[in-house]
Amino acid sequence: MQNEKFKIENEKIRKMHSMKHSQLFTKTRKENPADEVSRNAQLLIRASFIHKEMAGVYTFLPLGLRVLQKIENIIREEMNRIGGQEVFLTALQNPELWQTTDRWSDDVVDNWFKTTLKNGTELGLGFTHEEAITAMMKQHIASYRDLPVYAYQIQTKFRNEERAKSGIMRGREFLMKDLYSFNATQEELDTFYERCAEAYIKIFSRVGIGARTFKTFASGGVFSKYSHEFQTVSDAGEDTIYLSRKKGIAINEEVYTDEVLADLGLQKEELERVTSIEVGNIFKLGTRFSEALGLTYKDENGTARPVIMGSYGIGPSRLLGTIVEVLSDEKGIVWPESVAPFQVHLLSLGADTEANEWYEKLQTAGIETLFDDRDTSAGEKFGDSDLLGIPYRLVISKRSLGKGGAEVKRRTESESKIMSFEEVMNFLS
Amino acid sequence: MQNEKFKIENEKIRKMHSMKHSQLFTKTRKENPADEVSRNAQLLIRASFIHKEMAGVYTFLPLGLRVLQKIENIIREEMNRIGGQEVFLTALQNPELWQTTDRWSDDVVDNWFKTTLKNGTELGLGFTHEEAITAMMKQHIASYRDLPVYAYQIQTKFRNEERAKSGIMRGREFLMKDLYSFNATQEELDTFYERCAEAYIKIFSRVGIGARTFKTFASGGVFSKYSHEFQTVSDAGEDTIYLSRKKGIAINEEVYTDEVLADLGLQKEELERVTSIEVGNIFKLGTRFSEALGLTYKDENGTARPVIMGSYGIGPSRLLGTIVEVLSDEKGIVWPESVAPFQVHLLSLGADTEANEWYEKLQTAGIETLFDDRDTSAGEKFGDSDLLGIPYRLVISKRSLGKGGAEVKRRTESESKIMSFEEVMNFLS
Repeated sequence: MQNEKFKIENEKIRKMHSMKHSQLFTKTRKENPADEVSRNAQLLIRASFIHKEMAGVYTFLPLGLRVLQKIENIIREEMNRIGGQEVFLTALQNPELWQTTDRWSDDVVDNWFKTTLKNGTELGLGFTHEEAITAMMKQHIASYRDLPVYAYQIQTKFRNEERAKSGIMRGREFLMKDLYSFNATQEELDTFYERCAEAYIKIFSRVGIGARTFKTFASGGVFSKYSHEFQTVSDAGEDTIYLSRKKGIAINEEVYTDEVLADLGLQKEELERVTSIEVGNIFKLGTRFSEALGLTYKDENGTARPVIMGSYGIGPSRLLGTIVEVLSDEKGIVWPESVAPFQVHLLSLGADTEANEWYEKLQTAGIETLFDDRDTSAGEKFGDSDLLGIPYRLVISKRSLGKGGAEVKRRTESESKIMSFEEVMNFLS
Repeated sequence: MQNEKFKIENEKIRKMHSMKHSQLFTKTRKENPADEVSRNAQLLIRASFIHKEMAGVYTFLPLGLRVLQKIENIIREEMNRIGGQEVFLTALQNPELWQTTDRWSDDVVDNWFKTTLKNGTELGLGFTHEEAITAMMKQHIASYRDLPVYAYQIQTKFRNEERAKSGIMRGREFLMKDLYSFNATQEELDTFYERCAEAYIKIFSRVGIGARTFKTFASGGVFSKYSHEFQTVSDAGEDTIYLSRKKGIAINEEVYTDEVLADLGLQKEELERVTSIEVGNIFKLGTRFSEALGLTYKDENGTARPVIMGSYGIGPSRLLGTIVEVLSDEKGIVWPESVAPFQVHLLSLGADTEANEWYEKLQTAGIETLFDDRDTSAGEKFGDSDLLGIPYRLVISKRSLGKGGAEVKRRTESESKIMSFEEVMNFLS
């Protein structure tokens, strides 16, 4: 019976995964929006994946939301795999907590958005959640037996950026996956930190930017010499790193000193200076927050000790923008299969009946398909197909049918090939 | 190959759906929190489904988030079924749009949260999204051929409530599903409005409060005589309605006049005065927003006409609170199967090896199971089981095994029964 339920669920999911273009309310644009300088925003707005509300503030439209949700689910899977438990904290922040850690004042943190309750109390809009989650954990962590704890969320953050010109890569409002680790010992933290770094590498690889994303040494804090960033090589980035592609590591310019080079056993000559996008960061917080907010645990001897923490961030919306920046070409977006809104873009060129049959069969086979059933020109359909960036294009026309099937082309290639439905199925698998 | 993918996906989902209690970081509490007066917040905090950040501002903990996501997915399915396309708008709101519709001033809308950009520009935090989505649709709707459009989102809203004492039923920050309809004609709007009302009835029924939830006539606006609310009968509500259980309809006190009674063909004598919780509302907006913001379409003759709109809201977090209010008993929460965090609560009472085997088998069968494998007393396990409210409790002890299996009990019943694994499978289906 439960298996039956799963089957029905599957059937529903499959149906929902496909769509006719004529049903989609969004329209693509021929021209880049005049008020955007970043490539990610230009392409995503032209293709109608996002809509600009204000500088640095973007709405996700149906196709954009599909990509975003796929990215989120990949992150979720990898966070669950390393023991993360999902929670959902609040945007509104209690000033008392932030005063305790000395991060409330605008002189200390200069990108707060603040708002006011009717009784005059000022509240913050969270740009991160160390304070809130540390205070919350006081309800749940008392003894060494309660540790370790790994909790994460995917939630909207707010940052009052002075300027916002990088499209969805640096928004005033954006999605963040932030995981917080709570351990009894430094060794346990160190082990989890490495596991999380590996999970991050896996995430960047799964979303298609693994080959150009590098673990990068960045400035640490009181509790660790370095933190680590994950930097994707791209001219659109705001960071500068010194990279050894051979060794697969990099140093952020901010800590690029002779001392650090010596420490890491790297020579200046083997490093390449490149511009990059920070797509993730991991940080050993030590007892900075647990001491300030009083999060302690009793060890085996009953002695109270501060919990040792770490924080681990990836911005799903920034990741989406990064994928567009590094993988698109002059014709439009190029989505990796793992995050593409659909796997197949089926175009009918004057063969609607047959294309409809293919559409039905593709759905039954569980292939996510966008079916361009619109009554428009071939040129418009091809142009939109390149712009939208779906991995496989299948064109059904009288000509293709005469030759034995659909004209099949990868988005990344220029040559197409005629294939029967069975050949398409083999090709896709 | 795609089918293979689905199979693997299923396997992953099943595994993720089950959990050992010893892994869960949250702890239940024996006492109600002193600072909460509402039953939903008291129980949800004691059971550790939510955490209170501030009055009216709650974090969702792992079990609470599971329930919330199930509610969201039921809503999503029903909205997709009536043609809704999911989007994700922003919290930050552009004042210009709201000035155009005369809803920016705090004299007109008294529950705005506002914040300020570094350049001094005031922004709002959205409590609803008519303005934003109407302005956005100007990019996508030009002709009658582009209509109808139905777009919805599940997104965080902010309301600067003077007081917040109803737990998660009236938050300062809360989740909302808001759908907006865009039609060419009044007839088309009227038809969709009824379809959406039916979808709402289905949602309330699916989440387990259908029998006590009633479509209720409420005040309309310039464009329609009435709007409709969906009111769940409960003493915890803030609304008063006049209800005919027999006819399955109600009138909100705010429009309870002789004229309205006559209009609806109802007699005072057949109506019962009850307190209720507003769990949904649907509203014909007409051209209020499209005229103000210039959202027009060209009809068949090329004449520009304002688009006719409607808005349709359900708060998933309020719905969660309502389920707790109306279904819980003196021992704790009682979740309907459709939204329960797990289907089965498996308790090991000194028979860990055998309970572990049952846990493995339940997972393989695709049953979402919380396995209480903790090293605590039977009393604590039973108490927590009643508090958490999982629909089916399976107790494995030497005694139960001696009698042939697990001691099985529904959360809603007091009698238990010994069942073999096969009998449990039949019982659950």
